[in-house]
This record gives sequence, structure tokens and C-alpha cells, in this order.
Amino acid sequence: DRPLTLIAGPCQLESEAHALMIAETMAEACATHGAQYVFKASYDKANRTSLGGKRGLGMDEGLRVLQAVKDKIGCPVLTDIHSEAQCAPVAEVADILQIPAFLCRQTDLLLAAGETGAVINVKKGQFLAPWDMPNVISKIESTGNDRILLTERGTSFGYNTLVADMRSLPQMAATGYPVVMDATHSVQQPGGQGGSSGGQREFAPVMARAAVSLGVAAVFIETHEDPDNAPSDGPNMIPLDRMEALVGSLMQFDALAKADPIRL
Amino acid sequence: DRPLTLIAGPCQLESEAHALMIAETMAEACATHGAQYVFKASYDKANRTSLGGKRGLGMDEGLRVLQAVKDKIGCPVLTDIHSEAQCAPVAEVADILQIPAFLCRQTDLLLAAGETGAVINVKKGQFLAPWDMPNVISKIESTGNDRILLTERGTSFGYNTLVADMRSLPQMAATGYPVVMDATHSVQQPGGQGGSSGGQREFAPVMARAAVSLGVAAVFIETHEDPDNAPSDGPNMIPLDRMEALVGSLMQFDALAKADPIRL
Amino acid sequence: DRPLTLIAGPCQLESEAHALMIAETMAEACATHGAQYVFKASYDKANRTSLGGKRGLGMDEGLRVLQAVKDKIGCPVLTDIHSEAQCAPVAEVADILQIPAFLCRQTDLLLAAGETGAVINVKKGQFLAPWDMPNVISKIESTGNDRILLTERGTSFGYNTLVADMRSLPQMAATGYPVVMDATHSVQQPGGQGGSSGGQREFAPVMARAAVSLGVAAVFIETHEDPDNAPSDGPNMIPLDRMEALVGSLMQFDALAKADPIRL
Amino acid sequence: DRPLTLIAGPCQLESEAHALMIAETMAEACATHGAQYVFKASYDKANRTSLGGKRGLGMDEGLRVLQAVKDKIGCPVLTDIHSEAQCAPVAEVADILQIPAFLCRQTDLLLAAGETGAVINVKKGQFLAPWDMPNVISKIESTGNDRILLTERGTSFGYNTLVADMRSLPQMAATGYPVVMDATHSVQQPGGQGGSSGGQREFAPVMARAAVSLGVAAVFIETHEDPDNAPSDGPNMIPLDRMEALVGSLMQFDALAKADPIRL
Repeated sequence: DRPLTLIAGPCQLESEAHALMIAETMAEACATHGAQYVFKASYDKANRTSLGGKRGLGMDEGLRVLQAVKDKIGCPVLTDIHSEAQCAPVAEVADILQIPAFLCRQTDLLLAAGETGAVINVKKGQFLAPWDMPNVISKIESTGNDRILLTERGTSFGYNTLVADMRSLPQMAATGYPVVMDATHSVQQPGGQGGSSGGQREFAPVMARAAVSLGVAAVFIETHEDPDNAPSDGPNMIPLDRMEALVGSLMQFDALAKADPIRL
Repeated sequence: DRPLTLIAGPCQLESEAHALMIAETMAEACATHGAQYVFKASYDKANRTSLGGKRGLGMDEGLRVLQAVKDKIGCPVLTDIHSEAQCAPVAEVADILQIPAFLCRQTDLLLAAGETGAVINVKKGQFLAPWDMPNVISKIESTGNDRILLTERGTSFGYNTLVADMRSLPQMAATGYPVVMDATHSVQQPGGQGGSSGGQREFAPVMARAAVSLGVAAVFIETHEDPDNAPSDGPNMIPLDRMEALVGSLMQFDALAKADPIRL
Repeated sequence: DRPLTLIAGPCQLESEAHALMIAETMAEACATHGAQYVFKASYDKANRTSLGGKRGLGMDEGLRVLQAVKDKIGCPVLTDIHSEAQCAPVAEVADILQIPAFLCRQTDLLLAAGETGAVINVKKGQFLAPWDMPNVISKIESTGNDRILLTERGTSFGYNTLVADMRSLPQMAATGYPVVMDATHSVQQPGGQGGSSGGQREFAPVMARAAVSLGVAAVFIETHEDPDNAPSDGPNMIPLDRMEALVGSLMQFDALAKADPIRL
Repeated sequence: DRPLTLIAGPCQLESEAHALMIAETMAEACATHGAQYVFKASYDKANRTSLGGKRGLGMDEGLRVLQAVKDKIGCPVLTDIHSEAQCAPVAEVADILQIPAFLCRQTDLLLAAGETGAVINVKKGQFLAPWDMPNVISKIESTGNDRILLTERGTSFGYNTLVADMRSLPQMAATGYPVVMDATHSVQQPGGQGGSSGGQREFAPVMARAAVSLGVAAVFIETHEDPDNAPSDGPNMIPLDRMEALVGSLMQFDALAKADPIRL
């Protein structure tokens, strides 16, 4: 019932200046339309399709940049972690630790993340049904941490294709935890370009709007000032200069959806 | 950009009195909220899961009842046809001929339907991609008939399960033809109860709202005053007494969506 | 436990001379290796992807050619029917009436086919689970006809792709009816070439061998002396001059499989 | 073209005595029929469906037991690793390091495993197409290690279901690396029992035979003397006392397949 949160940023951190530029643009766009804003970026892309894909700034430099975003823009930041060892140091900076979809059943990672006390955003694996998520939740809850977000990012649908099942949004919401729609990755075409993943950028706003109309807590969108030259996920990122209009549009659907909640 | 049309009615015709009761209730609900209304019912269920499933009133009695609905309620009527021979006589009564999803690639049926000059609503097969529909459209257009509607009713997703891919709505709309969301059948579980299909009635409003927020021309919903005792598709029908509230809710999202159209 | 049957022929009938040439070549190949042979060809392709696809010889000429194959080659013939009206006249010539996959739930077609007393080969729909087939069988059995074959031809797997689930072969065999593996259509890529279907010809022998090793009663393979110029299904047909070696190879696996049957 | 290898053992290590009992039984069964034998067991189940699932002996005790199997039975051993840190110590004992399917795109894990110089068995992710595997291979090859095995273990097919696409076997073999069919996990029903995964034990021999008939290098099968009481994967394990007959049957198909290789 609270207004929509936008989790948005570049796929991977490029530099402090770049992160600040994107965070500032997004923070302003969200403030204009009454949305909460969380900056998102990865310091390491640990599962690129191929070895040639850029990995990112690394943890030390990445955390420094994330701290700069917090200090200078004043918004919470989200980043993803890939091993138990990363959880504690990353949680010193990041407000939200994100569990990548491929890793959503790795028990030790879930426990280590939960134990930091940070908010944990778990992406539902491409191989998981919505009703399998309570098992994932229980692993995190066993650490005493119940600050959990659940993200839909698409389900395997044949080869090199994902489909986002709208039923998963109210189904996951029935757990009582906030649900996030990842509009960027649910239109990804995994491996669809041979050595990298393809995507259908034009459908990200479609997914975002459909999900917001169902009353999700947050939308996750990757954005870049020049998606075609972004180091990763370019094919499904939304150009930064189109984000403000998109946020404005989504907030109208959000107001309607929050006033008229779906009940299963 | 015109207000939403509701295509609604029982899955199959039961009697004239029953049809009139449902049509009148729906027509009033739609009028209250400014929606167009089309009555939908089948005179023959030609592809029931098992032989024991009720087939319906048959063509002669069915057409008589459909005519009664037109005369007494004043709304257009839609019904589905299953063979070339049925097209012409059915088109004398029905305003819209519907091509069942399983039959959407049967060339002769498409041609016979098109030649009647009636509006043709083609359901996209559970085995078809959205981008395969132009081939279906071309078959109908070859008869000189371009009064065509395209319906999303879910795509095969593993066994006994369908998934409705929201991308298909703007993709089919890109053909220039009006797109219909079948909220009832996209939550069907084909064959899911052994001798009949199951369904997830609670998700039909979810599918309807997500689709309406994307600006579809029409929503197709089956309804019954007592779904659990309906002769077919009960598991996924919405109770009649909940339809007016649903129409009201959908019209709010429709107004927003029509004012802010999705463009791919 | 009887030796493998090969159901093979061109996708569609082209001429009497062409049909006889293929039937003779295949009959000899099968005789050489101890396989039963059934000639297969369609007189009408009723559900081509697009209107421009060739439909075939038509029923009258088609039946004349099928009769010629029976008379001159001495093998049984199989062809597919698409409406109730076609069943009786086609059954006067064809030994086996085939129900197309898209039509496998059309009750009236199943009943009309069953009533002819001919052997009925039902292709499992791309949208059906193996355990849904008993409902289809019951419709045919209700006519008193229990001469039924069940064919696996692939299941929808994302868009424009099929997957053949090997589990379906013993599952369908558990009904007690002979099971046929359609090696040609299970490697089809429906709609995969825009206006026509693509296919992966190289995998047809893969599917055939895997199925034969599991003890299927028959394999269905389309073949042509010049697949790239065949009027339909060229992308997944096997060149005629490779069929004899394939039959020989399959018969070795068949002997082993029949001597060591899979039991669930 | 070498005779089939059986990779078999319990899902997880239970005790030294248990491991030796299973390894001895399997080694004898394989010797009887001329198959190579590799013992398989996990020391840690790092991604159980739910927190309540047993994790196993742990790395230290697990490696001690694996070493005992090598010493006393004289067969190579395979086990799976879940983090970079585990690779080097595990490679001191295990002949083959296995990359779990969920982790098959984790670059650092692939590199750390490759750098040990051990044989690396990568399970193709449930979310991956066969043609995506060359990217995975390249990551390992970049370490100078080309002792790689590729395993098919099923692909996501709707919710809680996998399907094994037989095309993937020759497709992966086209990379030049040996291909393994995991007959146990390709009939798993992930999450299908709520807090644990279900399975269709009866289909494991079906998958094994189909794959062997296509000429795979190895079959991976989990076995237990009492599957219904095994600590994990019981629903899809084959009883130990049925393994010898299964190996004998598979070796007959293997001989035929190796003499008559599939060529794409």
C-alpha cells in the first residue's frame, strides 16, 4: 500500500562519476513523481555468458563507489553478492543484498546473507515455481532476518527465452513479503546472442506496467545513458533519458493499484 | 483508444432464460461503467477433454437462443464455430464468429469464416508464437474480410499448464487489429483434472487487469451464477455477482491505459 | 514384440508416379531388413502455416493414387483426415486414418473416424500431456473401434520449438495400444521460417533411434528424393537414398529392444 | 567409441561402510559387463530444496571416505564442489570435480575447478540450451584444462518439471567432449513435493537406454539399497539390487551404438 519503489541503475558499476550521474538522474525522476528510489549496480558480474564479458570494478572499488552514491545522493543502494565471504563486507555499505537467480537455492549463501541483518532481495530462479519460494524464505528467516524482498525475473520457456508469469506476483505476495518485478531481466534472452545474452528492451516498460497494475511493491529496471554501448545487459536496458516519463506513467498505475488491491 | 469491450457470458448455452439472465446482468454492469458489452456463449463444446463432458444445446437451438439475446438485450453476440459448414448459418445470427485456438491454423475454416463477412475472433493457438499470427490473419484477409480480432488465451508451458505472455498483447496489436485478452482460458489447466480441465479462477482478474493496463481492446471472461456447477470451465469462471465490481475496476485501468498507450 | 513398422512416405502426394517410386523404394528397404512397411502421404495439407503453402492433390485424386500404391506395391496406406465428412470415403481406400495433432481433441472427428472401423492413428497434440491420451482413446473406443495407434510428435517448448519427451513413449504404451514415434515432426520448428515451418532434419534419425531403443511399435518418417524442393516439410525430411541404411540401423536396435522390453 | 562408463553411487555420502558397500557392488556389476566404473557421491548437498534437508558428511570426512573408496575398491571417484575454495582440496582426492547445474555459469568456480587439472564434469543448467555450452567450455579451457565432461540433466519445462531433450546429446558431443546422461536428475521433479523434490524413478532406465543408444560416453545414475529411505533424491534413485541387470542391458545397446555412431 506504500507508493512504488524504483530499484534502478546501470547493470554494472563503471566509475564513481557514472554511478553518481545515473543515481542523481533517477533520484530526481523519482522525487518528481513521488516514488521511492534505490540505486542498483553490480561490482562484479560473476556469471557472464562468456569469459570475454566485462566483470566490473571489483568489490573494493565497487563498495567505495556505492558508498559515494549513498553519501552524495542520499538514497539506499542495492548490489548482488556471489559467495558467503562477500556478504559481511558488502553489507557494511549496501542496504540491500541481492541473491542472484542462479544462486537462489544455495543454502550457505542465503544464510550468510541473512546473518548480516541487511535487507535481502532474492531473485526467483529461472527454474523455480512461485510456490517454491517459501523454502527459500525459510532459509533466510532461520537467521532471524525477515527483511526479505522477492523478485520475479522470468522463468525458462524453451531455449534462450524467458516468460514472466503474472500469476507469480500475487502468489509471491501471499507470503507477506514485498514483491519486486525485474522488468529488465524478464525480457532477457539468455545466451541469445551466442557469446552474450540478448534482450527485448522494448518490452521492459510493458512488464513494468503490467506488474505495477497488480500492485507490486517495487520495480527493478536497469538503465544506461547509452544502452547499446553498456558493458552488460545493453539489449534489455532502458535509455536513461526515457526513465522519468516511465516513472511518471508507472506511478499513475501504482496509485490506482494500491487503491484497489488484487486479492486472490 | 475506444473504451474497453467486455466479451462475457457462460461457457456454454444452457437455456434461453439462463442466457438472458446472464446477458442482462452483464449488460447492466457494463452500462454502469461505460464498457461495451458482447454476449458470449457456445452452442456446442466440440473438443471437451473427455466424451462424458456436456456438449451443449446444439446449433439450431443455440442460434435461437443467441437471437433471443440480441432481440431482448440488444447486445452483439459471439459464438464459436468448428467446421466450414457451420460458418454461414451461424453468421446469420452471430455478430462475431470465433475460431477456437486448436483450429486457428485450419485454412478452410478460416476461409469459410472470413467469407461470411462477420467479425472473426481468432484465438491464438496454445502452440503458436505471437509473431505467427500474421500468417493466420492473411488467410482471413484473403477473403476480403478485415474485421478481425486476435485473442490471447495462453501458451503451453510444460504439461497441463498455460502461461500468458504479456508481450504477446502489444506484439499482436502491432498487426493493427484489436487484441482481446481471454482471462478465463489463460488460467485454464488443460486436462488438469483427469477427465476435465482444471483452472485457477482466482487469477482471471489478475490476467484481466494486467492486460487492460497494457491497453487491450477487449477482455473475454466467462461467468456463471454458480461456477462450481457449470457444465464446463467452472474451475476458471468468475461468479456472476462479482462481475460488476470487476468491470468497474477494469474500466479505471482502461481509462489510464488508453490515455497513455504503450508503444513498442 | 513384433518387428518394427516403418510408416514412411512423402509429406504430401505429388503424383501417382512419385508415390509409386517412393513406396517401391521404401518397401524394398523394409523387406531387406525385415521391417513392416506402411506408405504415408497426405492428399490435402489443411493447416499450412500460410496460405501460400501448397495444399496437395485433393481427396479424389489423392485416393486414386493411394489405391494405386496399394494395388501395385501391396503395402497398407495411411493418410490424414480433417473433417467428419472425409472419414467414410477415405476409409474405403486407406487402411489407417490419421488424426492430425491439432485436431486430436475434436470429438466429432474422432467419432467419425472410429466409426469407419479403420485403424486410427491419433497424433498427440503439441499441447497435450501423455497422460491426457486416455481421454482421446475413450472417444474412439466409444464407437466400438479399438484398432488405435498413438503417435508422439513433440510437445510445445517455448516458441517455434518442440521437444520430444521420451517418457511419453512408455507412458502411452501403458494404455496397451501400439506407440508410434514421429521422428519427422518432433524435430519440426513450427512457424520457424516465418511463412513456413523449419526443421532439423539431422535430428530425425536421432529421435527414431532413441524411440526404437525403447521398443516402440512403429516409426513415422517423411522422406523425399529431394527434400529441399519438397512442397512441404522439406526442412525435416530425410533424403530417400538414406532411408535403407537408416531402416537397417533401426532394425538392429529394434531387435535388441524387443528382446529386452522396458517395463515401468 | 570406448565402452560405456557408469558414474554411479548414492546421492550423498552416508558413511565409509555404506560408500564401500555401494562402490563394491557397482564395481562388480560393471566388471561383469565390461563397463568402466566411477564412484559418485556428494559430501555436502549445498542447495537442498529446504533447510530441513540433510546436508551430508562435510568436506573433511567426505574426502576421507572418498579416499577409502579409491584405496579399497580401486575406482576413480567423482564429487561436486560449490565454491572456489573447495576446488583445490577436493581435487587432491577426487578424480573428477563436478560443477552443479545451478552453478554452471559461475565463472570463478569454473576457473578454480579448471586450474586444479582434475577432470571437470559440468552439468548443463536447467536454464541453458545445448548450444550455450561452448561458452562454459571456453571458461574452463582458458585455464589450460581440456579434460572436460558435459552432462545432460534435463531442462526446465513448465513448473516443477524437467524434460530431457535427446537432441542435446549429439549437439554437445559436437564440441568434441564426452557427453554424460544423468538419468537420475533428468527425471527429477524439482520442488515437486513441497519441501523436497519428487522424481520418477521408473523413467531413469528409460532415459539411460535412450541416451546410450545414441552413443553417449557415460551414464550417471544414483542408486541406493533403500531409495525410499535415502537422505536425498530417493524418489528418482534406482534400487541397488537392480543395477547389475540395468548395466548389462545398457552395455548391449552401447555396443550397438558404438558400432553405428550417430553423425549429425
